[in-house]
Amino acid sequence: MIIIMKPNASEAAVGRIKNLIESNGLQAHLSEGAEVTIVGVVGDKTKLQGANIEMLEGVDKIVAVTESYKLVNKKFHPEDSIISVGNAKIGPGHLTLMAGPCAIENHDMVLETAYAVKKAGAQFLRGGAYKPRTSPYAFQGLEEEGLRYMKEAREATGLNIVCEVTSLRSLETAAKYVDMMQIGARNMQNFELLKEAGKAGVPVLLKRGLSATIDEWLNAAEYIASEGNTDIVLCERGIRTFETATRNTLDISAVPVIRAKSHLPILIDPSHATGVRAYIEPISKAAIAVGADGLIVEVHPRPSCALSDGPQSLTFEQFEHLTKELEPYAKLAGRE
Amino acid sequence: MIIIMKPNASEAAVGRIKNLIESNGLQAHLSEGAEVTIVGVVGDKTKLQGANIEMLEGVDKIVAVTESYKLVNKKFHPEDSIISVGNAKIGPGHLTLMAGPCAIENHDMVLETAYAVKKAGAQFLRGGAYKPRTSPYAFQGLEEEGLRYMKEAREATGLNIVCEVTSLRSLETAAKYVDMMQIGARNMQNFELLKEAGKAGVPVLLKRGLSATIDEWLNAAEYIASEGNTDIVLCERGIRTFETATRNTLDISAVPVIRAKSHLPILIDPSHATGVRAYIEPISKAAIAVGADGLIVEVHPRPSCALSDGPQSLTFEQFEHLTKELEPYAKLAGRE
Amino acid sequence: MIIIMKPNASEAAVGRIKNLIESNGLQAHLSEGAEVTIVGVVGDKTKLQGANIEMLEGVDKIVAVTESYKLVNKKFHPEDSIISVGNAKIGPGHLTLMAGPCAIENHDMVLETAYAVKKAGAQFLRGGAYKPRTSPYAFQGLEEEGLRYMKEAREATGLNIVCEVTSLRSLETAAKYVDMMQIGARNMQNFELLKEAGKAGVPVLLKRGLSATIDEWLNAAEYIASEGNTDIVLCERGIRTFETATRNTLDISAVPVIRAKSHLPILIDPSHATGVRAYIEPISKAAIAVGADGLIVEVHPRPSCALSDGPQSLTFEQFEHLTKELEPYAKLAGRE
Amino acid sequence: MIIIMKPNASEAAVGRIKNLIESNGLQAHLSEGAEVTIVGVVGDKTKLQGANIEMLEGVDKIVAVTESYKLVNKKFHPEDSIISVGNAKIGPGHLTLMAGPCAIENHDMVLETAYAVKKAGAQFLRGGAYKPRTSPYAFQGLEEEGLRYMKEAREATGLNIVCEVTSLRSLETAAKYVDMMQIGARNMQNFELLKEAGKAGVPVLLKRGLSATIDEWLNAAEYIASEGNTDIVLCERGIRTFETATRNTLDISAVPVIRAKSHLPILIDPSHATGVRAYIEPISKAAIAVGADGLIVEVHPRPSCALSDGPQSLTFEQFEHLTKELEPYAKLAGRE
Repeated sequence: MIIIMKPNASEAAVGRIKNLIESNGLQAHLSEGAEVTIVGVVGDKTKLQGANIEMLEGVDKIVAVTESYKLVNKKFHPEDSIISVGNAKIGPGHLTLMAGPCAIENHDMVLETAYAVKKAGAQFLRGGAYKPRTSPYAFQGLEEEGLRYMKEAREATGLNIVCEVTSLRSLETAAKYVDMMQIGARNMQNFELLKEAGKAGVPVLLKRGLSATIDEWLNAAEYIASEGNTDIVLCERGIRTFETATRNTLDISAVPVIRAKSHLPILIDPSHATGVRAYIEPISKAAIAVGADGLIVEVHPRPSCALSDGPQSLTFEQFEHLTKELEPYAKLAGRE
Repeated sequence: MIIIMKPNASEAAVGRIKNLIESNGLQAHLSEGAEVTIVGVVGDKTKLQGANIEMLEGVDKIVAVTESYKLVNKKFHPEDSIISVGNAKIGPGHLTLMAGPCAIENHDMVLETAYAVKKAGAQFLRGGAYKPRTSPYAFQGLEEEGLRYMKEAREATGLNIVCEVTSLRSLETAAKYVDMMQIGARNMQNFELLKEAGKAGVPVLLKRGLSATIDEWLNAAEYIASEGNTDIVLCERGIRTFETATRNTLDISAVPVIRAKSHLPILIDPSHATGVRAYIEPISKAAIAVGADGLIVEVHPRPSCALSDGPQSLTFEQFEHLTKELEPYAKLAGRE
Repeated sequence: MIIIMKPNASEAAVGRIKNLIESNGLQAHLSEGAEVTIVGVVGDKTKLQGANIEMLEGVDKIVAVTESYKLVNKKFHPEDSIISVGNAKIGPGHLTLMAGPCAIENHDMVLETAYAVKKAGAQFLRGGAYKPRTSPYAFQGLEEEGLRYMKEAREATGLNIVCEVTSLRSLETAAKYVDMMQIGARNMQNFELLKEAGKAGVPVLLKRGLSATIDEWLNAAEYIASEGNTDIVLCERGIRTFETATRNTLDISAVPVIRAKSHLPILIDPSHATGVRAYIEPISKAAIAVGADGLIVEVHPRPSCALSDGPQSLTFEQFEHLTKELEPYAKLAGRE
Repeated sequence: MIIIMKPNASEAAVGRIKNLIESNGLQAHLSEGAEVTIVGVVGDKTKLQGANIEMLEGVDKIVAVTESYKLVNKKFHPEDSIISVGNAKIGPGHLTLMAGPCAIENHDMVLETAYAVKKAGAQFLRGGAYKPRTSPYAFQGLEEEGLRYMKEAREATGLNIVCEVTSLRSLETAAKYVDMMQIGARNMQNFELLKEAGKAGVPVLLKRGLSATIDEWLNAAEYIASEGNTDIVLCERGIRTFETATRNTLDISAVPVIRAKSHLPILIDPSHATGVRAYIEPISKAAIAVGADGLIVEVHPRPSCALSDGPQSLTFEQFEHLTKELEPYAKLAGRE
């Protein structure tokens, strides 16, 4: 931690800061410049919790030197993690494909989709049983019934299944069915849910919040990890900006940034990032080329009748075409 | 709903759209322009759920004509609402002041603060028992113990109390103690929580999400209202932008926009909007001048020792000074 | 300047940094922490231009301690400036009202507007002779002919006149006519224009760029000041965010932030900030309450026929009503 | 154009709108819904300029049906353009690589860089002679002297040269030297400059503004095209968002969006998009994979001594490595 004093800070003010730091068992290193004095603080800064140094007389601002996340931080875990989920591995050397409908609408569409995406090369079936919808009057999901269909699809096809959880209640139920639970963008800072997911012992797919910085996202992952669960896969799905030509703005640079800051795998969701079916193939190629560990894609038997996210869903044929197109890119990225 | 066709849409494509609309019991009105044809849809559009018209051949885009929120919409409830909470009224003619610490730290500081803010003119004591914090290693709140202190403060001072709920579990507990429950920015689209708040029968203070549009915010309010609880007060607390000189960017125009779109009262939170104590007074004056129904302000006995949000908390003296300064502005706004 | 080393930076790497700094005639202060070493640099950092320290081995990042703007910085000029323009003064104690049409459309409308806004209390007539328009097919302005009408309006009414300049060419022409030249949001980082405005010897109204940070804005002002012209008035007109209910998002906190960082006066433009006539009055009250030095407002004889920005323009009656409504707010702010 | 009336709009108000439209020689098609009436306008809407329909009684809002840009619009020019610049072609089937220093610092570094990037496979040398810098105290460029060095580099190596112009004055000078002139992000809506570039008869590289929507960007291109110059290449270089881990946020989806809306080629600038050397290679691969027509990359003989943008500049070796790594991606994209 570095404390930057104001240009006119008195010697006495600097002295009080120094005393405060040293009386808490840390060291203070002073650099007196022509314009300002800066104070480097050495030692365990948690000892200073409750001492709001930025408010003391003469202090201009505080600069943090180290990140608040530790377990998911590459600095303390330099090797990239490979996460095992069901019969799949997610991370370097592997290309993970998750596919399925936005919302589980009925028994048959789930099974039909599972067979189709399995055949096209996916290892995971995705499907929403609990749907967070902007309007209370939109379709809200089949809940546990949907989870049962997903489980049946797993038994029929051998696909791993991933479903979103939106509350402590749905988390508890889903934990009995799924291979991986997704925490969606709107719940990325639902800290109670994160902690509970950390305790549930099921791998977690953690989507980035609509306006979350990468540091906040890694802190959200740290919530899960701090409860003992480090089987976490990140998913970039676009952030909110002023541009309206796409549903969100895919922050593709998040992939190399996460690689530099964390050891956790990262997927890209081209469906929510763009909201437009025609953009999914080029964005998927870019995702593999930039180094993402895989994709999560919305696929529906009849997108034009989908109860949710139809315009961004691929048909079975389109998804099969996509996976074929991605093969050479996966090879270039050293993924099978 | 209006359907805009592509410039090259065939007559057959337009015909199929027309048939689809009419076969669902609605009316289609065609306007054939030089460049494009547009189709106006008249009737109950929920009948078209599951028919993703934007995906049909020849369709360029869909334009929504009406908002999806109804119960909180001024169009269907033109008179501004006045919400009764405990012994207070929130809305036109009233100036609501909520004040207190970000986090409840112990028994004495709650009581001490309650007496001070009551004396300065507040009608509500705010205080966080469940704290959503970016890092899992930061102070997380006293939970039910904190709620008990709040209740004691209410009994001692007659202030109404407002506390944030962050999960179904904390909501259930808080409902037994508080006059008003706050749903914070990070949970604005925690739809399970919204629905439960709608059932709890306790007035709700609904903060705007960090990157929520005003329409999404009103849809979140609609979630609560659709469960039977229309005792909702909105709170603008700053949105996330590229500017870093303040913690968030206060969207002060949200006040007249909400006035135009909804009948619900709206408060402003200058503490979170700016994150800087020195900016709270000018922003609070602006808030009253623009027409907000009141303020929620962070006040702490000793901000420099606060476990959370110290730099944006006012001392008792500063809060008392603030309320005095606001008096002539409240008078100009016709609020007592 | 502070240099933060990587956790694993070698002693040799730290030594090289230290040598580089000292060999350039500055001092290096080391603080060796448990995790990282930080290096405080003391002395004139322009000596390090061309030495990209952040790229040297072992360096994690650089933190700037002082701002790059000096002449417009409050640290070096603590008293708030009052700028004289024509027969008016802009700054503490004064309420500046600039009003007029977005675009000068013809002779009569300019004169008509000048008389009306003068009567309502404005000291400045605004009017666009060179119009920056998003589409090349929209009305582009009357150019020098428009400036002549403005000059005539000044002679007839005694109002000071302010016009936007959009190029070196229009700047040269406008300098012969106007009391104050406006540099618009889209040209805030048109550095050639800023430098020329600095040389022109005419007071400048500098609008904030659509996505400019406050520091970038003050650096733009520094461009003007560094050429010898410190008669600069800032104007906040809304920034670009994801919210679409208003044309831009007014960053009202920019007023106290500018007060803290600079000695220059600051106005607010409620017309561009909101884009909606009905929101101008409440926002104008908030602007005065928050401490702005005045307003620039679009007024048009017949807004529904305006060639530009009609929906956000006030009629004469509405502007007169506005100035009356603002009087008590100006009094509270100690402005006449 | 579609006019959406308010729910309570009177029949008389609707009638007045209809009359206004018809009296201007256009047709009005009414659709009366249960809640609102909508009016479709058929005909040449420029006839309605100056009639601000959104301000008329009873009108809720206006929805534009067609874009205001025509010459750069794919709807009216469905085939993708290939632009010839010097001895190069930019567009489908070609991989364009532009490389060179942010700023031209002296004669030798330009020549040295030209030979190196030529050898590595670039067809264009980039280099800044006029530098738009946030602070007036930063290096501002060598101006015409720099252009002479660029010309010499072209003669020595056969590379085409591209330089940024920042004012009418520098445009006039640069037109005598360069194969292609760049209009930078900060000048994307410097409309005088755009018009002059349209008249200059030199191909233009038009960067996207920091907070420009794709529609505004295409309108800026239309400014150039409307003056008779359609040799325009777009360049996505990152937009401004709340995320600070990268210098800007690359909007990679802009590539497929531009493909859908315009026939102009589009490059990506990974250097400014990320600001971090280590991210340039993965982002460049993604750029080719998503379908961009090429890249513009900052390369410097000794980045750690660069006067501008050192931290995001590649060394010669790194650029050569990059072009080798890109080869298989170019092949997959059908580019040579």
